[in-house]
Amino acid sequence: MNRVSGLFNITYPIVQGGMIWCSGWELAAAVSNNGGLGLIGSGSMTSDLLVEHIEKCRQACDKPFGVNIPLIFSNAEDFIRIVIDKKVPVVFTSAGSPAKYTSMLKESGIKVAHVIASPKFVSKCEDAGVDAIVAEGFEAGGHNGFEESTTLTLVPLVKEQCTVPLIAAGGIANGRTMLAAMALGADGVQIGTRFVASEESSAHINFKKRIVELEDGDTELSFKKLIPVRLVKNDFYKKVKALEDKGAGRSELLELLGKGRAKLGMFDGDMSDGELEIGQASALLKDIKPVARIMKDLVVEYNNAKNELKNI
Amino acid sequence: MNRVSGLFNITYPIVQGGMIWCSGWELAAAVSNNGGLGLIGSGSMTSDLLVEHIEKCRQACDKPFGVNIPLIFSNAEDFIRIVIDKKVPVVFTSAGSPAKYTSMLKESGIKVAHVIASPKFVSKCEDAGVDAIVAEGFEAGGHNGFEESTTLTLVPLVKEQCTVPLIAAGGIANGRTMLAAMALGADGVQIGTRFVASEESSAHINFKKRIVELEDGDTELSFKKLIPVRLVKNDFYKKVKALEDKGAGRSELLELLGKGRAKLGMFDGDMSDGELEIGQASALLKDIKPVARIMKDLVVEYNNAKNELKNI
Repeated sequence: MNRVSGLFNITYPIVQGGMIWCSGWELAAAVSNNGGLGLIGSGSMTSDLLVEHIEKCRQACDKPFGVNIPLIFSNAEDFIRIVIDKKVPVVFTSAGSPAKYTSMLKESGIKVAHVIASPKFVSKCEDAGVDAIVAEGFEAGGHNGFEESTTLTLVPLVKEQCTVPLIAAGGIANGRTMLAAMALGADGVQIGTRFVASEESSAHINFKKRIVELEDGDTELSFKKLIPVRLVKNDFYKKVKALEDKGAGRSELLELLGKGRAKLGMFDGDMSDGELEIGQASALLKDIKPVARIMKDLVVEYNNAKNELKNI
Repeated sequence: MNRVSGLFNITYPIVQGGMIWCSGWELAAAVSNNGGLGLIGSGSMTSDLLVEHIEKCRQACDKPFGVNIPLIFSNAEDFIRIVIDKKVPVVFTSAGSPAKYTSMLKESGIKVAHVIASPKFVSKCEDAGVDAIVAEGFEAGGHNGFEESTTLTLVPLVKEQCTVPLIAAGGIANGRTMLAAMALGADGVQIGTRFVASEESSAHINFKKRIVELEDGDTELSFKKLIPVRLVKNDFYKKVKALEDKGAGRSELLELLGKGRAKLGMFDGDMSDGELEIGQASALLKDIKPVARIMKDLVVEYNNAKNELKNI
């Protein structure tokens, strides 16, 4: 048991990132049932749907699980009430200030972690009373920091200032990358991309197949004039890139983005015109696997790679 | 002894990156004298100056050292002749094809490593007969790959294909980041930024002082329409960024860049109008140190961090 597995009462210090359109109750329950911490990604849900996913997750697993709530969305406050009402054991908040809801959640007995992409937010997190901090690097899929700090530089910087357990995220998809994160001083890892390409994720099968075909250089951090987001370089990305290269402003970019792009790609399976959010670590993946296999491989690879390391 | 220290006949698998304006004979000799492999950075030198630095390095140290030759420069062929003529034990080539000079160097008994930023160049390197490959991630200072692959994702991808010893570069500046690189499967590391901020580097003192003050987010990969290069966000960078944001083309960017920008900043110490190339790992540095101290700290931190790792 370490600081992260002890905090969440789980077997392995492995958290499955809560992601829009990809991480419903089936994925979260599978990860928790296999010794990690599964998170339901509420960012693409309505209140009713979130309630349904929490209830189904609880039926499907008798281990701790959690919900990720991106605070940037207008329904964040409703979701906070729901997780308190439903006595969800763990909440990960992201994309906003930890000051607003952390004490309310903790008073209800919920463990709280907050996601940051820069060491300058560590003290805000600790002042708010979070139980853990997730430091997420440039490699990560989806929304990302403006500083472009990679996991390799971000994690040691956060570690210097951080007293609560530290969870590394971004670029972690196998045992070796997990070991690297722990070498940097992390107490655990949050993994997204690897779990999107699992049998249990709610991503469209077209998206899962595309992910395991991606090679080095097939994703790029885009929309830096709005909120940076790492995208697969498909036709939609190419339109974004062309606009950005000619110096387009926010309004032009927002018009191209339109509504429902992420659902169109990740959930409905349109690989050309959809917005496909995924991490750089996709290049490391070869096949879609069941969660049980992913968890087992992570642990075996981690321990093997650790035992190969020698003093210098 | 491991694959990298054995290959170069050095004590620790630590290579000091050859960098323009910063790594002359004093730095290279200091690193080699302290058990690593020091590299003279020829990229900012004339032929006469390179000969002088090789001779002085040899006088100052009785251990193996090397020269880095960026193949993109017009005088690369002259430099190849010089290192052969002067019997330099090791050459690192970068920014070009390894096919052109590797066999010529090897026939002269020189060990050759080539720097790449994408796994798609591994087979070219091995076909050319290199003795080692350097995989350099997005975190690195100076010129960088178009793919923006970070060290965390790049090193395992290169490792999958690579049969020769693998050296990781980009974002490595202390024992923990070195350990992370070795956890990813690297056999050794190449370190640049940390050695620029050493007493023995030939960087201007203004630049060294600026480097150790840099915080997270204070560098950015720029000039992506020319050759990507990681820069400190000073006044010059701001002019570059403003042009890029409004969609400027290559000719406009080249005009702003002008001639001698890198020397002006890194060697002459103009912190406003100079081009300041440095890695993200600068945020991890607190003080300018002598090379002997840097090497000692790297080894102690590495072994301590390694011994703290536990199985999961």
